[in-house]
Amino acid sequence: MHLDAVQRVLGVLLMVFSITMLPPALVSLAAGDGVYEAFLITFAVLLAMGGLLWLPVRRSRRELRTRDGFFIVAMFWIVLGAAGALPLLIDQESTLAPVDALFESISGLTTTGATAIVGIDDLPLSVRYYRQQLQWLGGMGIIILAVAILPMLGIGGMQLYRAELPGPVKDAKLTPRIAQTAKALWYIYIGLTVVCALAYWLAGMTPFDAVGHAFSTIATGGFSTHDESIGYFDSPLIQMIAVVFMLISAVNYSLHFMVWRRRSTEPWRSDPELRVFLGVVVVMTVLILGGLLIYQAAHDLPRGETWHHAIFQVVSFATTTGYTSVPHYTWPAFLPVLLLFLAFMGGCANSTSGGLKVVRVLLLWRQGSREIMRLIHPQAQIPVKIGARPVNERVIDAVWGFFATYVVLFTVLMLTLMAMGLDQVTAFSATASGLNNLGPALGDVAANFAAVGAGPKLVMCVAMIMGRLEIFTLLVLFTPAFWRR
Amino acid sequence: MHLDAVQRVLGVLLMVFSITMLPPALVSLAAGDGVYEAFLITFAVLLAMGGLLWLPVRRSRRELRTRDGFFIVAMFWIVLGAAGALPLLIDQESTLAPVDALFESISGLTTTGATAIVGIDDLPLSVRYYRQQLQWLGGMGIIILAVAILPMLGIGGMQLYRAELPGPVKDAKLTPRIAQTAKALWYIYIGLTVVCALAYWLAGMTPFDAVGHAFSTIATGGFSTHDESIGYFDSPLIQMIAVVFMLISAVNYSLHFMVWRRRSTEPWRSDPELRVFLGVVVVMTVLILGGLLIYQAAHDLPRGETWHHAIFQVVSFATTTGYTSVPHYTWPAFLPVLLLFLAFMGGCANSTSGGLKVVRVLLLWRQGSREIMRLIHPQAQIPVKIGARPVNERVIDAVWGFFATYVVLFTVLMLTLMAMGLDQVTAFSATASGLNNLGPALGDVAANFAAVGAGPKLVMCVAMIMGRLEIFTLLVLFTPAFWRR
Ligand SMILES: [K+]
Ligand SMILES: [K+]
Repeated sequence: MHLDAVQRVLGVLLMVFSITMLPPALVSLAAGDGVYEAFLITFAVLLAMGGLLWLPVRRSRRELRTRDGFFIVAMFWIVLGAAGALPLLIDQESTLAPVDALFESISGLTTTGATAIVGIDDLPLSVRYYRQQLQWLGGMGIIILAVAILPMLGIGGMQLYRAELPGPVKDAKLTPRIAQTAKALWYIYIGLTVVCALAYWLAGMTPFDAVGHAFSTIATGGFSTHDESIGYFDSPLIQMIAVVFMLISAVNYSLHFMVWRRRSTEPWRSDPELRVFLGVVVVMTVLILGGLLIYQAAHDLPRGETWHHAIFQVVSFATTTGYTSVPHYTWPAFLPVLLLFLAFMGGCANSTSGGLKVVRVLLLWRQGSREIMRLIHPQAQIPVKIGARPVNERVIDAVWGFFATYVVLFTVLMLTLMAMGLDQVTAFSATASGLNNLGPALGDVAANFAAVGAGPKLVMCVAMIMGRLEIFTLLVLFTPAFWRR
Repeated sequence: MHLDAVQRVLGVLLMVFSITMLPPALVSLAAGDGVYEAFLITFAVLLAMGGLLWLPVRRSRRELRTRDGFFIVAMFWIVLGAAGALPLLIDQESTLAPVDALFESISGLTTTGATAIVGIDDLPLSVRYYRQQLQWLGGMGIIILAVAILPMLGIGGMQLYRAELPGPVKDAKLTPRIAQTAKALWYIYIGLTVVCALAYWLAGMTPFDAVGHAFSTIATGGFSTHDESIGYFDSPLIQMIAVVFMLISAVNYSLHFMVWRRRSTEPWRSDPELRVFLGVVVVMTVLILGGLLIYQAAHDLPRGETWHHAIFQVVSFATTTGYTSVPHYTWPAFLPVLLLFLAFMGGCANSTSGGLKVVRVLLLWRQGSREIMRLIHPQAQIPVKIGARPVNERVIDAVWGFFATYVVLFTVLMLTLMAMGLDQVTAFSATASGLNNLGPALGDVAANFAAVGAGPKLVMCVAMIMGRLEIFTLLVLFTPAFWRR
């Protein structure tokens, strides 16, 4: 590794992150909730730490190599995850244990949205704002990393995504220089957030709630300023606004970029991954709605509200946002589990959503089908296709490698949680929720993670970071080959 | 398909199977339990049905094609599974519902060993014998199909197992003609059964129990002539005998064949798959034993007995036999789930055990590791190896296709069981138990499957047959391409 280049980047990262402490400090001063000191101290500490890292190497002109990229991407969530916990710890009034503060910060930045806090409505206004902002910043980081950096590293088949996939993605010629690309993506991300906030506000949210929920909607994060999540507003209109923006946020940002550039919706309309994703959402909505109507008698939900709760929960889970409009875990056991399984697929590649990603699931499915055809026609050459064009076998290999690692890691995390005393339903759903950056789980942690101890919370932190880093980015750091020259 | 050739084979199959009704009839006459009529009627019915199928096409000389093989293999378990339920239905004294009889027969023939019967000790002696014999016959069928027929069909990478894998398997030149190979394998299978029965008898079992348990041990079936399974005998010696023969039965029968031919244990000692399998068994025994000792205080097991229960349960689950020496589901929740996960791997290829098979898991693992290495060295050519030699990429493709289909099928079966009202733990463990041909599950079906309705039992029948057929054999029959000329 080029240590000085890495050190320079980390220093800059911390200094930039320190600035994000100023908006919540302002909120605190405006609301008079007294937490501003904690944010200002954090600002000073992070600025100083970043500066100390940056100063000695500020004149270094060593370029980053691909290998350094892994390290920086991993540090992004680990270092900033720890840094983000600081104000929650420093605040004198806060009763959060250190592990809870870390959990909340990592859950926020990874856009998972699981919470260990009960009584969000009673928190100081600036802390409620800060949690939402963490998600928004995390989502912004993901977009840059996913579109501009991860493809260079070659994680789980995505290295070849742009070069290999047919049609829009290839033709797009995303602005080659990272800085320019990043700027364009940020404009889109910020633009979507503004429009989403306005829509929420017009639908009846307070400006505070509108901005807060726009932050966590566009990041597919799922944090809310209320314990009851979106259910607090009890408004089908707000739910449908959330549905629209959650879906937009779960789409490949390269597509948004092209739509914006070309002033044409053709990139959306012709993307095979998006088509499959929307197809799954429609089918699952029908399934969940059917299930709810059948079990209606056993459930106290008024019939007239069933349809929008069904749509909302399916979109919330399929995009791995994790908002809830209703305590879905009280539905008949089959339905919450079905929702949870949606998050394994997750949204489209290069979006803020979690899970395996639709394009990977699609590739696995196509290759499974090919093997059945090969049994019948052992001599035939059958390519695996996405859209109309065949996919390079190397990409398929990489996706399989990703999937296998995912399955092994899932098993290890789940068994670790069980060894710590969690029951099977809780351990399974918590692992799924963390690794897919979903948020809600089932069992003892259906409503929040307050009921489990420090051990399981730390395991969840690992799961959330692993999920966000697409596993490989972190795993690769543990191989001896990585550290060899 | 060559319908007449398929019809001929099915006819012969039914006639041969009808003969297997005679031993339990004899047992019934000797014991005077009055069930002999049911067995004799079944004998006559199956002989007549087989004859009617066989007679019109007995002179047909059409050869079977590969494609017909899929159909015959699928029919083997479906038709014989249904046929095997007949005596349990015909018996006037039997109180089994039709679905329970079918469940018991399919569970027996697929060597799953899950039971819907409570009160096995009180059944007529001949029925207790019949259940054990079903397992033994199923195991015999698997060995022939796995070693002699499935490789020709190319299921899940096994088509190339012999041609591609290094060392012993390739050098062995298994007798090329199926009939001869089958005969050699049967000798081994029968020989192992005889030695196992003698060992059980010398260790204190009655001759009836010794033969019955030898049947289900060598088939890695798991049926017992007692409700308490092996726990009934309360004998560490018997448990250790079972451990030895379960392990032997979970080894690739091609290896046994070579050891027998060459009068040398070298094929065992040099097989990479076997080495990994035994390694996993040792590591898991240590884990389970450690877990048990830690939780000892919370459990009423006397400390002195812990070690042999740990070894026994690990081997029983790793080989997918599914015997229990102790109600393991009363152990702290972590341990039974860990045991259950062992069955996902299962034993070695070409054995009677279920699960994914060690060699497939090993390939998935190796390919996952390769992808991590590829991230660090994107240009390097890194072959996937088993033992010393590289594996053909086509085999890896086939194994991935198998794995993907397995995961999808697992999810569908589990959600179906939950939609039928089973809770998550029960549905998960039942699916795992059925699809891996293990037998025991957790939750409501921890002790037996009597507590669930007809629907879940039929789903379990599908799972057991799917598992035994390595999924693809059955799936392929549902593709339009299969039925095209
Ligand atoms: K989320
Ligand atoms: K079994």
